[in-house]
Amino acid sequence: MQFNVSSRLDYEVRSTTVFVLNVEAAALRNQKVLAENLVLEPPLALDRHVANDSGTRFVRVIAEPGTFSVGYHGHIELNMHDADPATVPEVAIAELPLEVAPYLNPSRYCQSDLLGRFAQREFGGLPPGHSRVTQICNWIYEHVDYVRGASDAQTSAYDTMVLRAGVCRDFAHLGISFCRALGIPARFASAYAWQLEPPDFHAVFEAYLGDSWYLFDPTRQAALQGLVRIGVGRDAADAAFATIHGDAEMTGMQVSIAPADDEAAGEEPTVRAVGIA
Amino acid sequence: MQFNVSSRLDYEVRSTTVFVLNVEAAALRNQKVLAENLVLEPPLALDRHVANDSGTRFVRVIAEPGTFSVGYHGHIELNMHDADPATVPEVAIAELPLEVAPYLNPSRYCQSDLLGRFAQREFGGLPPGHSRVTQICNWIYEHVDYVRGASDAQTSAYDTMVLRAGVCRDFAHLGISFCRALGIPARFASAYAWQLEPPDFHAVFEAYLGDSWYLFDPTRQAALQGLVRIGVGRDAADAAFATIHGDAEMTGMQVSIAPADDEAAGEEPTVRAVGIA
Amino acid sequence: MQFNVSSRLDYEVRSTTVFVLNVEAAALRNQKVLAENLVLEPPLALDRHVANDSGTRFVRVIAEPGTFSVGYHGHIELNMHDADPATVPEVAIAELPLEVAPYLNPSRYCQSDLLGRFAQREFGGLPPGHSRVTQICNWIYEHVDYVRGASDAQTSAYDTMVLRAGVCRDFAHLGISFCRALGIPARFASAYAWQLEPPDFHAVFEAYLGDSWYLFDPTRQAALQGLVRIGVGRDAADAAFATIHGDAEMTGMQVSIAPADDEAAGEEPTVRAVGIA
Amino acid sequence: MQFNVSSRLDYEVRSTTVFVLNVEAAALRNQKVLAENLVLEPPLALDRHVANDSGTRFVRVIAEPGTFSVGYHGHIELNMHDADPATVPEVAIAELPLEVAPYLNPSRYCQSDLLGRFAQREFGGLPPGHSRVTQICNWIYEHVDYVRGASDAQTSAYDTMVLRAGVCRDFAHLGISFCRALGIPARFASAYAWQLEPPDFHAVFEAYLGDSWYLFDPTRQAALQGLVRIGVGRDAADAAFATIHGDAEMTGMQVSIAPADDEAAGEEPTVRAVGIA
Repeated sequence: MQFNVSSRLDYEVRSTTVFVLNVEAAALRNQKVLAENLVLEPPLALDRHVANDSGTRFVRVIAEPGTFSVGYHGHIELNMHDADPATVPEVAIAELPLEVAPYLNPSRYCQSDLLGRFAQREFGGLPPGHSRVTQICNWIYEHVDYVRGASDAQTSAYDTMVLRAGVCRDFAHLGISFCRALGIPARFASAYAWQLEPPDFHAVFEAYLGDSWYLFDPTRQAALQGLVRIGVGRDAADAAFATIHGDAEMTGMQVSIAPADDEAAGEEPTVRAVGIA
Repeated sequence: MQFNVSSRLDYEVRSTTVFVLNVEAAALRNQKVLAENLVLEPPLALDRHVANDSGTRFVRVIAEPGTFSVGYHGHIELNMHDADPATVPEVAIAELPLEVAPYLNPSRYCQSDLLGRFAQREFGGLPPGHSRVTQICNWIYEHVDYVRGASDAQTSAYDTMVLRAGVCRDFAHLGISFCRALGIPARFASAYAWQLEPPDFHAVFEAYLGDSWYLFDPTRQAALQGLVRIGVGRDAADAAFATIHGDAEMTGMQVSIAPADDEAAGEEPTVRAVGIA
Repeated sequence: MQFNVSSRLDYEVRSTTVFVLNVEAAALRNQKVLAENLVLEPPLALDRHVANDSGTRFVRVIAEPGTFSVGYHGHIELNMHDADPATVPEVAIAELPLEVAPYLNPSRYCQSDLLGRFAQREFGGLPPGHSRVTQICNWIYEHVDYVRGASDAQTSAYDTMVLRAGVCRDFAHLGISFCRALGIPARFASAYAWQLEPPDFHAVFEAYLGDSWYLFDPTRQAALQGLVRIGVGRDAADAAFATIHGDAEMTGMQVSIAPADDEAAGEEPTVRAVGIA
Repeated sequence: MQFNVSSRLDYEVRSTTVFVLNVEAAALRNQKVLAENLVLEPPLALDRHVANDSGTRFVRVIAEPGTFSVGYHGHIELNMHDADPATVPEVAIAELPLEVAPYLNPSRYCQSDLLGRFAQREFGGLPPGHSRVTQICNWIYEHVDYVRGASDAQTSAYDTMVLRAGVCRDFAHLGISFCRALGIPARFASAYAWQLEPPDFHAVFEAYLGDSWYLFDPTRQAALQGLVRIGVGRDAADAAFATIHGDAEMTGMQVSIAPADDEAAGEEPTVRAVGIA
């Protein structure tokens, strides 16, 4: 399936400001960029960096006072591995590729070390495998309210366990924490998300199962087969679409995604279904 | 029913130390002290204070370096109000005696303000009344492990919601928090607890229902009709059996309670049952 | 000195709502209400309660859907005890009236149990007395930024120690926590505050020194001799000007205070000075 | 300078247990392993992994019930870059190698996002460069007590800011947090530490300055030129010497380090001095 994604961020820059941007589709084995362009207004020199372990692409640019905008358009081909969930196992720690092990560690927003007893009580007795992570997502969906404004940039999984309200990033952080507590490597992903209403950058998570990363969206708001990943990391701290060092204010933001081929256009969006990366 | 209670605390005092002790049975309408004595070794002058709103009795004494011990024996008559739980209603905020309202406020270990959404989700739909508080206790018993050493003096209900392990004081703090979040005044009580094994000071909570305070023990470890209350307050911060200002180390502690009349002796201990204060 | 104070709260009530209001001047030994009136629109029956230990006055009223407003006017005489700070001692725990001891306990927003080491390090070596509490206020003023919006209703002294920004209630919570950690009873007070700009309900704290409660304002925004106290309690949880049980939205709020006699009118406002209750 | 390092960990294994061990000296540009051996008793097959970005070396082994021990001996050459601190600058975000940027992000134990205001207030006005990080270390040394048992595996920099006590890992977490809050990339390092008394695994931190990572030890307990690094990561979560999946109890632990050449033997240990990696 192919998708056209685009985003545009507008800023009013008040003093020389360094932007580290992460809006381009990640370079992944099963996510090919067929065509893309990044337009800075005014045009500015930029530095690029691709994170080795996740394919996350960063652009750094120095903007002078005035208006500054960054527009991105990408034509992306997704080749999701569409396995039968029942056949996707968890990986024993004895078998796990050790380069994946850091995604078992607790992180800023995912205190998996503190959620272990709860995770064991609630999910420890379930049959291991892809279905267990789906059960984790179901629990989150059923026990946490999706409420804009109920959380902020400081809210962690620890808080969400008590407060029981949040947005997509909080849902993802909770899912990641439960997985790690159970010995399942898990990481955060920001994405262009087909079917998401209203259109926005979305946050989901990936769990390492079988021999690859599988996508999960505990908010059930997006079609998993239409997630074009942007930033992948330990949690939201690693996947900000813009980190601003200086004095600039966002004045506008647009995000969109649409099917780009007949396959995608004709397919029934599988909102809430099991998508597989 | 009548009970004989006793406790003995031994200390090694290293420098002049002020003890504020709270080991005597509280002076309550339905808890009469028939006889008691408090023995300090060495004998020392003491100041007394009874908290107006709860009947909690404090003794202050200044101990010099050396050994210091405080022994208490009390012969206590309990006249519990043994109502049918089904007839005990919650009290609408419009009808609540306003002097009870402070027990709706969050406190150090009971952040009821942060537990509101969870409490509403989990208990908001249950029929109000004594049975709803029993359901709260059941939830705690079923979702939190009783584990010595899993919590410490800093652990609050917020933490226990995530960590899911604790001891009697943590169980009580969680029960208090849920009640307050639902508009039910609730307070902490330390007690001599019949049937508690091993014998120790116990912690339970009281909820204001109908026109009085009712006892609840989410740990299900003690017989509710055999709770001789010592300290009553907003949470454990108000009901320490000893607050030590100086340099002293506890070297021994003994706590006991036994039926003192035929009624008590013959009665089947109602561990886990609904007790009513 | 005499002051005229007034406040007006306007609400849009959407369903039958119980208000517990605390806007009247507290009934205190050194704060006499010479005249006052409370006007509810529409006129409604009300229940009253005065807290024994602090003189805080609560009014409960049940409002039906529509507009609801409460207006208060009071003519208040303050007879502050204007001692020389240098003569006001701390009270040793051995001498402290035991009814004041609960104000040594940690509370929801004042985790004095966790701030002990810092308080000892920073203030433990200072000469005890009124001046030490002034030093505490100076520390807060110098180390915490007064920033509207930097904190919210959940922010506690623990948080403010790290975040270093807040408003009057956060400043008060920090002052209370340090005092309690040092063995000085301290409590929260809401107040009509002369010289406060813009006019609003203010939050300060009281420390028990010598043989009475002394006022402190670490924000240095109000004249201490012009504080007409409204609610007094362990922390902000006990002194909300309005607690709303139901569905109502505040649509307006006005607060004012002005000198009512020649003495007050002629006096130089002692902003930042040591005021004494 | 050359050092001989060794460690031995003994376990009683109760059921089949997977150990992920990190006790070998890291493979770093300026830290060469001249000779080493790792002895498992009983001998067991092992998997190895070296983290790309930090040279941290992990060994995975599956132990069956019984005793299990791992012994490591390494002969290590350190070629520290011994620059004059006054010539080591901070790196502007516009110039920073982007692969280093993740070490600006907050992590589990280093909530740099919450410590920004304090860091700016306390260190923001200091001249940038190596000396500013030294000032950060000085602040930690002067404001936090080194107290065994005052913290635990859950303690984060946020907590240490309030509690003001901890051990080497807490000191490192605070240093990392302040650096990141100021825009200086910083990471955690576990190490064999010359001069540390009693011998143990030590925790220090590295700040990215000039064009490399520089070592800092806010505890002032070790000689910086004698730190043989083992694990390097975002914080202690990434650098455990042993992660245990199963049921095993540690029954013994020995750690040692000693100079292995005349240069090291003759050198005055620079405890508290500026060491440079």
